[in-house]
Amino acid sequence: MTHSFAVPRSVEWKETAITILNQQKLPDETEYLELTTKEDVFDAIVTLKVRGAPAIGITAAFGLALAAKDIETDNVTEFRRRLEDIKQYLNSSRPTAINLSWALERLSHSVENAISVNEAKTNLVHEAIQIQVEDEETCRLIGQNALQLFKKGDRIMTICNAGSIATSRYGTALAPFYLAKQKDLGLHIYACETRPVLQGSRLTAWELMQGGIDVTLITDSMAAHTMKEKQISAVIVGADRIAKNGDTANKIGTYGLAILANAFDIPFFVAAPLSTFDTKVKCGADIPIEERDPEEVRQISGVRTAPSNVPVFNPAFDITPHDLISGIITEKGIMTGNYEEEIEQLFKGEKVH
Amino acid sequence: MTHSFAVPRSVEWKETAITILNQQKLPDETEYLELTTKEDVFDAIVTLKVRGAPAIGITAAFGLALAAKDIETDNVTEFRRRLEDIKQYLNSSRPTAINLSWALERLSHSVENAISVNEAKTNLVHEAIQIQVEDEETCRLIGQNALQLFKKGDRIMTICNAGSIATSRYGTALAPFYLAKQKDLGLHIYACETRPVLQGSRLTAWELMQGGIDVTLITDSMAAHTMKEKQISAVIVGADRIAKNGDTANKIGTYGLAILANAFDIPFFVAAPLSTFDTKVKCGADIPIEERDPEEVRQISGVRTAPSNVPVFNPAFDITPHDLISGIITEKGIMTGNYEEEIEQLFKGEKVH
Repeated sequence: MTHSFAVPRSVEWKETAITILNQQKLPDETEYLELTTKEDVFDAIVTLKVRGAPAIGITAAFGLALAAKDIETDNVTEFRRRLEDIKQYLNSSRPTAINLSWALERLSHSVENAISVNEAKTNLVHEAIQIQVEDEETCRLIGQNALQLFKKGDRIMTICNAGSIATSRYGTALAPFYLAKQKDLGLHIYACETRPVLQGSRLTAWELMQGGIDVTLITDSMAAHTMKEKQISAVIVGADRIAKNGDTANKIGTYGLAILANAFDIPFFVAAPLSTFDTKVKCGADIPIEERDPEEVRQISGVRTAPSNVPVFNPAFDITPHDLISGIITEKGIMTGNYEEEIEQLFKGEKVH
Repeated sequence: MTHSFAVPRSVEWKETAITILNQQKLPDETEYLELTTKEDVFDAIVTLKVRGAPAIGITAAFGLALAAKDIETDNVTEFRRRLEDIKQYLNSSRPTAINLSWALERLSHSVENAISVNEAKTNLVHEAIQIQVEDEETCRLIGQNALQLFKKGDRIMTICNAGSIATSRYGTALAPFYLAKQKDLGLHIYACETRPVLQGSRLTAWELMQGGIDVTLITDSMAAHTMKEKQISAVIVGADRIAKNGDTANKIGTYGLAILANAFDIPFFVAAPLSTFDTKVKCGADIPIEERDPEEVRQISGVRTAPSNVPVFNPAFDITPHDLISGIITEKGIMTGNYEEEIEQLFKGEKVH
């Protein structure tokens, strides 16, 4: 690529630490944090300092590789047992994102045939780096595949941040926008602010501006009116977990956007790597939906916006049924229509899953 | 009513001033402001210290009556001319709410036959008080009419604040909840927080808690998931202006809720007094949509939540087309179906409009 990519990296491996972009401080401050223990990593994931399913997977993988360095034993079996404990611990940080357990699983596999603890430790680091490198290539391919769905001047709506900082680089739902920019396709993005945690206004708006992409910010409540008044061409979102039948768990608000897009006859796309698919899960109803702290809804950045004792319902995700999805874009291409069958085809011959 | 009604009044006439509940300070502080000039009144409306179409109408009416007291002339014609100037000024404070111009128009009419300036000044005060008294009765009737649409244990969703503090008392969309409480119907309300100005979390949640009503707060983005997971029975909203064909302008987000309700086969109701109808306006496309300061979307209560220079689209209202509305509830009853005809019937023999 000749075009310089100005969006900072979300996660970097530094041998004795993991550096992450503190996404809780955006858009005001571009702060980097050093994580040196498994507790640091757990905390960074729980408190959304690092977020986005692929970035969580990468961070957890580096976290496991880092923590494994401190396991003091020469016995490989003992090492694997203790590795498993750390893995369980890191895996419990967020329940919905499948990439988390997928990445940790890959690291486990990488030590299966190790004959020494040293080899195992090295394998873990290599595998984690490999996951990051692959993710960047995966995102680029997703962007390339998604790009054919859009034409010059299209107005595209998105929610949450399925962007560069949610992944290794480029993002999933936002990847085609960066590639379109290089080809001078001039897409215009409408970013929903994405309450309660405001990933749309804090992260997507910031990230797209860093990358020189035209973006207009709206509140989530403006989606219907904007679709109509601004003649939105398409909606594209990321995913936290995709079931075997194409039902998609993503940031709360996605389901509503899909229904609205359907009502306006606007195509609704999901962009996600294969690692987001959970073929063990039959349909959306079987995906656990994380409920988060009510204070996220009662406050915004520490400012109270509701009575302190008002009851709150705060699901972090919702499930978009597959029949509302016009296409699922992966690094392998675009699926439309019979997801159950296409997803099965997709995973024939894949080594993990 | 034997039941004490614990929600504070939004507007009170104090002869030399108008006292308003400062709705910008809720839910943290219950602050009252004294308005003594037309500029105070204009400012209170523009800055949303008083809001809600009926409460704006009442405040503007009191504002006109108050400002008229200071018109120093003995010539009735001159008095009416200067009254007209103040009326135009107050009328320009918010473009979408029809009750504002409706109330000011009623005050104009009240001085048409006055033969002295003193009589005119007295008429204005009486007419403004009359508007407030009528609004309370109107809201009670709307509540009574709406109540028959709900049954014990129903879970009802609402947006914005069409409540007691948006009117003289009881509210429009919230009125049936207060009456249901007396009858021990045990309705449960899901209040959408209503970005960008958060009337749902700051006002509706607060007001319903003051009134002892069960309420759960959600973000606007949670509406679809909540409708499904909590099996919402109905949606009820207020209105800022209703066209001749039933198309309804209301707080941004309403249109989206109507589409979602439709998709889930949940009835969607609009509750509004006759004063909200603008029979001069044929359909929703002819209703002006106020666009407000981008900072409302970039900030929340003074806290920046987006890049300071991000472009914003900030429409304050949207239009719900009449075919998404299951019923419009007024003080005269419930309209369903052919709104154009029913609205025409409704206004046969009405003196204003």
